[in-house]
Amino acid sequence: MNYSLKSIPEREAKPRERGFTMAMDKGLSVREVEDFLEVAGDYVDIVKLGWGTSYVSPNLQKKLDVYKAAGIPTYFGGTLFEAFIIRDQFDDYRRILDKYNMTFAEVSDGSIELPHEVKCDYISKLSEQVTVLSEVGSKDAEKIIPPYMWIKLMRAELEAGAWKVIGEAREGGNVGLFRSTGEVRSGLVEEILTEIPFEKILWEAPQKAQQVWFIKLLGANVNLGNIAPNEVIPLETIRLGLRGDTFMHFLDVEKPC
Amino acid sequence: MNYSLKSIPEREAKPRERGFTMAMDKGLSVREVEDFLEVAGDYVDIVKLGWGTSYVSPNLQKKLDVYKAAGIPTYFGGTLFEAFIIRDQFDDYRRILDKYNMTFAEVSDGSIELPHEVKCDYISKLSEQVTVLSEVGSKDAEKIIPPYMWIKLMRAELEAGAWKVIGEAREGGNVGLFRSTGEVRSGLVEEILTEIPFEKILWEAPQKAQQVWFIKLLGANVNLGNIAPNEVIPLETIRLGLRGDTFMHFLDVEKPC
Amino acid sequence: MNYSLKSIPEREAKPRERGFTMAMDKGLSVREVEDFLEVAGDYVDIVKLGWGTSYVSPNLQKKLDVYKAAGIPTYFGGTLFEAFIIRDQFDDYRRILDKYNMTFAEVSDGSIELPHEVKCDYISKLSEQVTVLSEVGSKDAEKIIPPYMWIKLMRAELEAGAWKVIGEAREGGNVGLFRSTGEVRSGLVEEILTEIPFEKILWEAPQKAQQVWFIKLLGANVNLGNIAPNEVIPLETIRLGLRGDTFMHFLDVEKPC
Repeated sequence: MNYSLKSIPEREAKPRERGFTMAMDKGLSVREVEDFLEVAGDYVDIVKLGWGTSYVSPNLQKKLDVYKAAGIPTYFGGTLFEAFIIRDQFDDYRRILDKYNMTFAEVSDGSIELPHEVKCDYISKLSEQVTVLSEVGSKDAEKIIPPYMWIKLMRAELEAGAWKVIGEAREGGNVGLFRSTGEVRSGLVEEILTEIPFEKILWEAPQKAQQVWFIKLLGANVNLGNIAPNEVIPLETIRLGLRGDTFMHFLDVEKPC
Repeated sequence: MNYSLKSIPEREAKPRERGFTMAMDKGLSVREVEDFLEVAGDYVDIVKLGWGTSYVSPNLQKKLDVYKAAGIPTYFGGTLFEAFIIRDQFDDYRRILDKYNMTFAEVSDGSIELPHEVKCDYISKLSEQVTVLSEVGSKDAEKIIPPYMWIKLMRAELEAGAWKVIGEAREGGNVGLFRSTGEVRSGLVEEILTEIPFEKILWEAPQKAQQVWFIKLLGANVNLGNIAPNEVIPLETIRLGLRGDTFMHFLDVEKPC
Repeated sequence: MNYSLKSIPEREAKPRERGFTMAMDKGLSVREVEDFLEVAGDYVDIVKLGWGTSYVSPNLQKKLDVYKAAGIPTYFGGTLFEAFIIRDQFDDYRRILDKYNMTFAEVSDGSIELPHEVKCDYISKLSEQVTVLSEVGSKDAEKIIPPYMWIKLMRAELEAGAWKVIGEAREGGNVGLFRSTGEVRSGLVEEILTEIPFEKILWEAPQKAQQVWFIKLLGANVNLGNIAPNEVIPLETIRLGLRGDTFMHFLDVEKPC
């Protein structure tokens, strides 16, 4: 930190299980990745190449090299996994993970319908090859999953080998954990947390109001994802109580007047 | 493409009449243009320097050189044409197109009132000098043009020499083709398409929901414009069915389960 | 300017008391600062490092050097001042201003409660060290300050030594001067202007509709702040009547048809 302030919440050090930040790269240039890492390299823990953007990105290998050199792991968005599955190309997907030396992968069913045992089977198989993040929640705003089912699905996916489970929100933050207005389904989150340890969950929270909500409920070291690259520094200040939104939340000092 | 996926919609090759993407530069630096072209150079067909931004951009000539070297044509936004017309400086405008070696220009009447024969006359004159895109639709949310009139205007402007006609939406996507909420005026678009060939129309669709709507209706190779530079890669994935929004739309394979 | 247009509003020259633009840097890289200044260096007058972002920005000193070399003064957001005050670290804050050779500082009470004479006392003390901008208005959407009180507060802060007073809007433009919808509290602004000279006020107006509103009411040379770096060029075109929103506003020429 550049100067000293009292009563700042303590952050976990890297590599961390709690308090990590997943950012989404939806088509950065090599230089933009370098710029992003210059400012946020200490604060971002993992980067998702959003949905199928890796298919069309001409600079893919170079970008992966830059992230790797900086010690930031990357993975392809779950929609890409689904694009291979729906085409019956799972073996091709495994080969692509190898080709690009990926050490993480996401298993999701946001756009396709998979019997849950089949999904868990994919998690198991991929876990032998890479570290798996699995995602719960539909991209379809009309598919409402009740809380007990979120818990059941998350537990089964962790048992199948997922390192962490992701609560779905999309880039826009308007499905899954969130109502179409972007408002958090708070009862849902609270019920999930009675059963699943919070360090095992990565909450997608692309909008500032959502980040604030999770940080106020779960503290500075909640795992948050789908953060835009230029919002990682702002998010870090929200975690530390240095933006208006959480300014008073972490303070235990007496006011001077 | 970086790897092989079955059942991906075929895209027209450049230079193309269908499926092209117009992006809007509203003040990029030279390096930002280079970054943009590194990732999206294969997907963007033409770049508009939005409204009067070229007047105040200190790096104008350098940027035009970078676009030119990459083979991406550029043009000044229609509002600039109107700024010259309302000041009775049409000849100055023609000299500026020459000075900057522009090969495209836009003729519009979004902010001024022009009798339609006068507008068509400008299209004819400029067509002798450059390739003309003409724009139909007002920037004024209260000026509702009925469908038969859109068709009549578009047809006359194509006959006057316009290469393509643009359906107005502004940067925000809330006028012309769209209701103030950003919702597409779908009956209007469908009626227009009964009379005007779709490759002659460039639809302004700055918002993701609008892009999805046009791609679902008109396919991967619809012409779309007013795309933000960092949204060209995301748009390409929507065209290809590799983002949740159009994921199932282009698939003819059987689901594996 | 790159070419000549008649009837363009005259802009004050730098350094200026009127018509200046304050931009907000919320975590730019060094290269992004260079890019920003390449395109907007002539149009931006001062840059705020938003709230506590300077605490976590690893490139802080390098960025300050780049801004300084370009002749653009910078200051730390008012929330950082408040973070030091609430921790009873005012002397530390003064040392940090010295350490980074800051020549401007902001005094605000958007997130803390300060008796107004205490706030004015901070303005007086800091005025001996740097040029002070003071901010009126709460970040709390529920704290409505009546117009006569805005005037009383602004006047007292100017008398205490503030160079200019800032009308609070936050990054999102939804508090203080604005309703939660982003709509301008127009009666408030008009009443303030009956008592406080407009060159002494810097209006925070991050949203385009707000910028347009102020420019239509107060002209091309109103002081506006909290502008995103990539919106400084668009804002300059709005000031000059070269974007649709203010296109007709500054024109005194006759229409050609």
